[in-house]
Amino acid sequence: MKLALDAMGGDNAPQINIDGAKEALQHVDALDKLYMVGDEALLKRLCDAAGFGGSPRLEIVHAPEVVGMDESGLVAVRQKKHSSMSIAVDLVKDGVCDAVLSAGNTGAEVAACTIKLRLLEGVERAGIVSPIPNNRNYVLVSDTGANPDAKPSHLVGYAVMSALMARYIYNIPEPKVAVMSNGTEDCKGCEFSKEAHRLLRHLADANLLPFQFIGNREGHDLFDSDMDVALTDGFTGNILLKSVEATAITFARWIKDGIKKHPMAMVGALGMRGVFRSIGDRLNADSVGGCPLMGVRGVSIIAHGSANPRAILNATRMAEGMCRHSVNDRIIAAMAPINEELRRLAEEESVV
Amino acid sequence: MKLALDAMGGDNAPQINIDGAKEALQHVDALDKLYMVGDEALLKRLCDAAGFGGSPRLEIVHAPEVVGMDESGLVAVRQKKHSSMSIAVDLVKDGVCDAVLSAGNTGAEVAACTIKLRLLEGVERAGIVSPIPNNRNYVLVSDTGANPDAKPSHLVGYAVMSALMARYIYNIPEPKVAVMSNGTEDCKGCEFSKEAHRLLRHLADANLLPFQFIGNREGHDLFDSDMDVALTDGFTGNILLKSVEATAITFARWIKDGIKKHPMAMVGALGMRGVFRSIGDRLNADSVGGCPLMGVRGVSIIAHGSANPRAILNATRMAEGMCRHSVNDRIIAAMAPINEELRRLAEEESVV
Repeated sequence: MKLALDAMGGDNAPQINIDGAKEALQHVDALDKLYMVGDEALLKRLCDAAGFGGSPRLEIVHAPEVVGMDESGLVAVRQKKHSSMSIAVDLVKDGVCDAVLSAGNTGAEVAACTIKLRLLEGVERAGIVSPIPNNRNYVLVSDTGANPDAKPSHLVGYAVMSALMARYIYNIPEPKVAVMSNGTEDCKGCEFSKEAHRLLRHLADANLLPFQFIGNREGHDLFDSDMDVALTDGFTGNILLKSVEATAITFARWIKDGIKKHPMAMVGALGMRGVFRSIGDRLNADSVGGCPLMGVRGVSIIAHGSANPRAILNATRMAEGMCRHSVNDRIIAAMAPINEELRRLAEEESVV
Repeated sequence: MKLALDAMGGDNAPQINIDGAKEALQHVDALDKLYMVGDEALLKRLCDAAGFGGSPRLEIVHAPEVVGMDESGLVAVRQKKHSSMSIAVDLVKDGVCDAVLSAGNTGAEVAACTIKLRLLEGVERAGIVSPIPNNRNYVLVSDTGANPDAKPSHLVGYAVMSALMARYIYNIPEPKVAVMSNGTEDCKGCEFSKEAHRLLRHLADANLLPFQFIGNREGHDLFDSDMDVALTDGFTGNILLKSVEATAITFARWIKDGIKKHPMAMVGALGMRGVFRSIGDRLNADSVGGCPLMGVRGVSIIAHGSANPRAILNATRMAEGMCRHSVNDRIIAAMAPINEELRRLAEEESVV
C-alpha cells in the first residue's frame, strides 16, 4: 500500500504525524511507501531528527499551504489548491497513492475527497463511518457528518459500506445492521427512517444484502445489543457521536474532580488505577485511529484533530486493511444488484 | 394544586406510586389534593397500609384497566378508555385537576394528553422537555420524542416553552437557547435546522423572544457550554437522550466490572464511594423526577418507567412549579406576537 499522509493536519501537527509515520513504517510491513505532504524543508528536518529521513520507503512531497482547523471546508478546498491536504488527496486521485490520511479539518477532507476523488460506481453519497467501542466490540455508526441532508436510499449505501468494513476490518462474519430510531418497534421512526427501513427490508427479503438487517434500534442499544452497524443521517449521527463523546469525557471529569476534593478518594483512586486505565484505553479514539470516509474512489481515513502517533499508526493499519481486502471493489459489486432492484421498485411504485 | 397520579403506571407500580404519593403529600404543601387513579380496592388497601389512606387530601378514583409498558400508545388510548392513564388525563381535561403525572408508557401518555387535552393557544406541536445534568446545572433538551417529524417552526415553540421552564423551574433568569447541529458555525446544519435557526434569528432581531438565542451548538457542548436549552426534532432528540443515558450506564458498568475483577480496585472503590455516590446522584433521573410534555392544556409530567418514590416526589414538585408560575399562560402570551411575526414573514416571502 502507498499512503499519502497530510503531515500538516491536526492540532499537534506536524510532530505527531512525524512520530506516527515512524511507527507506521516500523509496524506496518505492507506500507510500501509513505508520502509525507507539507512544508518540505521542515518535514525533512523533523524526519531526519526522528531518524527515518533517509528511509527508502519515505517520500516528502512539498505543499506550501495549510488548511486551518476552523476554515470552511468547501472554501479551503477551492482556495487552497496547494495545501498539504489538497495535494495529499491529489496523490490518490492521480493513482500515485492508494489511501490518504489526515488529522486535519474534517469538513475540508470530506469536501476534498468528494470533489477530487468522486464517488464509487453505484454509490450515491459518501459517508463517515465512526466505530464506537461497546460491550462486545465496536458498533459502527454511519453517517456521522458527511451528509447532513441524507435521503433514505443513501442509508442503503451506508449499510453496505459499513457492513463490509465490519466484516473486513473488525472480523465480524455476518454483521447485523440496524436503522437508528426513536424506538425499536417497526412502527417507530420519522418519515426518513421509516422509508430507509422499508427499502432495507425489501432488499433483505430479496436476498440482496451482504449483511443481516435487524430493523430498528434506539440510543439505549448502542453499547449493549446485537447491533454491529447503526445507520443514520449525517446530522443525527454527528449529534449522536459527539454527545456520546461528551458524556464519556464529562463522566471521567466528574470522577477526577471528586478525587481531587477528597483525600480518601485519592487513596482509593490509586487502587483503581488499573480499572481507569483499561476503560480509558477502551474509550480512547487513538485505539481506533480514524474513521473512513467511505464511498469515494480510493481509501480516505479521517483521524481526530487531537490524534497522537498511536492514532496515526492505527489509522494506517485501517487504511491497509481496506486496501488489502479490496473493500471498495466489494462495495461496487454489492451495490450493482441492489441499485437495479431499487430502480425496479421505484418504477413499479411510480406506475401504481 | 390538584394532581392526578396514574397509580398503575411504571415498572414497579403501584407500590412506588403509593410511596411517592405519601412523600408528595408530606413535602409539597401546595398539593391541595391528590387523585390516585387505578384499581380502587387495591389502592385503598395500599394507602391504608402506608398510613395515609384516611388523608382528606387524598381521593382514590377507580380505573379498571391498565396500559401496558409495551403497548402502542395510540392503540392504548383508543381502546382502553378506562385505563388509569386515560382517566387521570380526563381529570385534567374536565378541570378537576391542574396536572397529571404518570410513570407509565410514554407513547401512550403523549397520545392521551395530545388527543384529550389538545394544544395550548398558539402552540403548533407538543414537545417533551428532558433536563440533562451538566457541569453548571441542567441543559433542557427539547423535543425528545413527542414529534419525530418536526417542522422548523415547531422548534420556535419548543424554544419558548423550554426557556420558560428553564426560567421558572430551574431559576435561570435569561436562558440561552441553541439549535443542535453538526457544528457550531452558522453555516452548519441540515435544511431543517438551518431554517429553524433562520426563524429564531429573525425573531431575536425583532426582539420577540423571551430568551437569548445563541445560534448553533453541537453534541460536544451538551455538558460544558453556555447552552441552557438544546432544540432539536423529536427523532434526533430521542436518539441523543437515549445515547447519553446509555453512555453513562455503560461507563458505570465498566467501572463496576473492573472493580469486581481486581481486589486492589475493590479496596480503592471503598475510598471512592463518596465520589461515585455523588456522581450517581447527579446523574440519577429520580433527582429530576420527570419530563414535562409541554404545549398541552394543563400540566403533564412523564416520569421514567423505573421511577422510584423520590422521582414521584420531584415530579410533583415540578408540576407544582409549573402551576404556581402559570407557565402555560406565559407560553400563550409569548407565542402571540411570535406567531403574528411568523405569519407576516411567511406572507412577505410568498409575495417575493
